Amino acid sequence: MFLRVRVPFILRCSKGPFRALTRSNSTLLTPSANNEAAVTPRTIFSGIQPTGIPHLGNYLGALSNWVKLQNENPQDKLIFSIVGWHALTLPQNPKELSASRRDMLAALLAIGIDPKRSIVFHQDSNAMHTELAWILSCITPTGKLRRMTSWKTRLAESRNANDESEVDESLLNAGLLTYPVLQAADILLYQATHVPVGEDQRQHLELSRDIADSFNRTFKGSSRMFPLPTALITPAKRILSLKDPSSKMSKSAVDPASRILLTDSAAQITAKVRAAVTDSIASGVTYDPAARPGTSNLLAILAACADEDVEQVAERCAGMSHGELKAEVASAIDILVARPRAEFHRIRADPGFLDQVARDGATAAREVSTRVMVQVRARIGLI
Amino acid sequence: MFLRVRVPFILRCSKGPFRALTRSNSTLLTPSANNEAAVTPRTIFSGIQPTGIPHLGNYLGALSNWVKLQNENPQDKLIFSIVGWHALTLPQNPKELSASRRDMLAALLAIGIDPKRSIVFHQDSNAMHTELAWILSCITPTGKLRRMTSWKTRLAESRNANDESEVDESLLNAGLLTYPVLQAADILLYQATHVPVGEDQRQHLELSRDIADSFNRTFKGSSRMFPLPTALITPAKRILSLKDPSSKMSKSAVDPASRILLTDSAAQITAKVRAAVTDSIASGVTYDPAARPGTSNLLAILAACADEDVEQVAERCAGMSHGELKAEVASAIDILVARPRAEFHRIRADPGFLDQVARDGATAAREVSTRVMVQVRARIGLI
Repeated sequence: MFLRVRVPFILRCSKGPFRALTRSNSTLLTPSANNEAAVTPRTIFSGIQPTGIPHLGNYLGALSNWVKLQNENPQDKLIFSIVGWHALTLPQNPKELSASRRDMLAALLAIGIDPKRSIVFHQDSNAMHTELAWILSCITPTGKLRRMTSWKTRLAESRNANDESEVDESLLNAGLLTYPVLQAADILLYQATHVPVGEDQRQHLELSRDIADSFNRTFKGSSRMFPLPTALITPAKRILSLKDPSSKMSKSAVDPASRILLTDSAAQITAKVRAAVTDSIASGVTYDPAARPGTSNLLAILAACADEDVEQVAERCAGMSHGELKAEVASAIDILVARPRAEFHRIRADPGFLDQVARDGATAAREVSTRVMVQVRARIGLI
Repeated sequence: MFLRVRVPFILRCSKGPFRALTRSNSTLLTPSANNEAAVTPRTIFSGIQPTGIPHLGNYLGALSNWVKLQNENPQDKLIFSIVGWHALTLPQNPKELSASRRDMLAALLAIGIDPKRSIVFHQDSNAMHTELAWILSCITPTGKLRRMTSWKTRLAESRNANDESEVDESLLNAGLLTYPVLQAADILLYQATHVPVGEDQRQHLELSRDIADSFNRTFKGSSRMFPLPTALITPAKRILSLKDPSSKMSKSAVDPASRILLTDSAAQITAKVRAAVTDSIASGVTYDPAARPGTSNLLAILAACADEDVEQVAERCAGMSHGELKAEVASAIDILVARPRAEFHRIRADPGFLDQVARDGATAAREVSTRVMVQVRARIGLI
C-alpha cells in the first residue's frame, strides 16, 4: 500500500548519525537549502499515520530512528505528529481508526518517545494545520499537484491500469489530490528546518519547499516567513513481508503472519518467524537479497535488531540451518520488542494518562503554531 | 468579476418575504429537502467576501435583505460571515485586504446587522471551517469540482479563450478548484437549513447538498448529521453600472464613478448620478431594460431605494426629463444611505468596538460549530 502514505515523512533506519542531503546526492537541494542545513538548532518534523500498533517494519524502518533523533542531538527541537487527517483520504472504519489512533500514540510512548523532550501530538487536535493548508492551496498550482507521482499512481490504480492517458480522475476525492499541500502545512506550521523522508516522499518534500518559497516571495516581510525544509535521508533499510519477501512488511497485507507486531508475544513471534518463507538452498546461510530474498530478509531483521552490519551478521550465521537462523531471529526480535511491548500494554491500560499526553502535546503544538500563524495572518492581510 | 464570488451566498433584493424553493421551481430540491424547508426554527447562513465598503449594488441586491431576514422572523437563527479565506483564491494586496475586511464588518453593523440578534463574524477567526472543509474534501470527487461552472469559466479565462478543450488548468491554484468545498463547510459547520443564494450560486449549493448527503450516508449515527441546506431564492434585482449598464455595478470596475459607495457624500452621489449613462431618447422616462438599460437602471435604483414596484415608479416619473429623474434618484439614494453612512463613520472610528464585536462574533460562531465538530470527529473516528 505504497500510496496509503502511512508514514508520510518516513524515517529510514540508520546506524550512523542522520545526515543532511548535499547537492552531490540530491537534486532537491539548492544553495539556500545547504545554508538551511547548517542552521542550529534544527526543528525536525515527522509524521506517521494512525495505523495502530506498529509492525517490525515500521519500528526498524522508521520509528526507532525517531528515538535516535531524540537522544542524539539535545539541542534539536523535535515535533512528531500522528496525522489523522491524512488517513481520511482513504475509506476508514471510524471505530478502527479511533482505536488505531490511540494505539499509535501509546506505541510512540512505548518505544521511548518522551513527551518531555519532544512534542508528540495528534495532528487533528490542531486545526491550524488545515487553516495553513487552505492558505497554501491558494498559492499552489493544480498542475503541480497533478504531477505528483502519488496522484498519478492513484489515477492508474483507479482504473487498474498503468496507461495514464486512459485513466479517469473524476471519481478520486479532492483530498487525494491536495494532501501534499496539507503535508506542506504540517511541516511549515512549525517552521521546521529538517524533515526525515524516504525516497518515496522526496517529491512531496520538494513541493513543500516550492510552496514555502512561493509564500516567502508572495508575502514578504521583515524576515523570511518559512525556512525551506531540508530532507534528512538515511540509507534505506526495508523490512520485507515474512510471507512474500518481494514486498515490504505491511499492515494491510491479508495474512497477519506476514508481519510481526510490536505487541506480539514471544510465542507469536516464534511461530511467525518459523513459518517465514525462505528458500530451498540447504547449504548454509548467505546474504543475497536478489537470489535469496526470504533468507536475506531474516538476516536483515537480525542485523537491525542488534544494530549490526548485515554482512557481518551473515558471516556469523553462515554455518546455520534455516531453522537455527529462525530461532536466532525470533529470539532477537523478542529481546527487541520486550520492553516496548510491556510499555504499550501498561500505557494502553491507562486511558487517562494517554488522554493527558495527547492534551499536553496538542497544547505544546498549538503554542508553537500560534506564533507562526499570527505572522502568517498578518502577512496575508487576514487581521 | 462574476468569478470573484464576492458574495458567495448571495441574497437578492425582495419586497416580499423570502420563500423556499419548491420542487416545481427548482431541480435542487428533493422530497427530503422539502421536509427541510418546513423545519422551524430555521438556521440561515450567508457569507460575503471582505471587499470593503459595499456599493449600492451590494446593499440593495444582498445586504439589505440580511437586515430584513433579521427583522422578519425572530425565531430564525441567523449566521452572517465575512469569508476572508475565500478572498485568497485571487491575488490580494494584504494591506488592502485587511482594511476591507474591517470595513465590511463596520458596514454590516452600519446597515443594521445586530450582533445581539445575529451571529456576525470573520470566517477566518474560526479554523473549524477549514477543518471541516478538509474532512469534506475527502468525500468529494474531483470530477464534481471540475464540473462547477465557476471552475470552467476560470479555465476559459486563464487562456482568454472560450474553447474549454484548449485551456490549461495547470496554473490555476488549488483553492480555485476546491473553494466550493469550503463553501459547503461554511454552511454545514452550523447545520444551516437555509442559504440565501443567487442564480450564480445554485450549483454550489447543490454541491453542498450532495456533500452533506454523502457525509450522512458514509458516517451514519443515531441521527442525520447534516440537514440538506435549502436555497432561499428571491426575485433577482440587479443594480447595474452607472457607466456601463450592460454589466452589474461592481467594486472591481475601473471607473469609480460607475458605482456609488455606501459612504459617498450627498455631493458625490449627485455627481455620479448626474454623470450616469442614460440614452438619447428625450421624450420622457420609460422602464425598458432592453432598449433603455441606463434609464431603466435609474428607475430600478429609485424603486429599490423606496422599496416600491419599478413599474409604478416608472409611471410616476413618466413625464420627467433625464435631469429631473437623476435629481430624484440622487436624492433617494442620499436618504437611503444617510444613516448607514453616518453609522459607518462612527463605528470605523472606534476600532476597539469593532474588535470587540469581531471577538464576540467569533466566540459565538465557535460555540455553535464546536458542538457540531465534536459530533463530526466522533463519527469519522478522529477521537
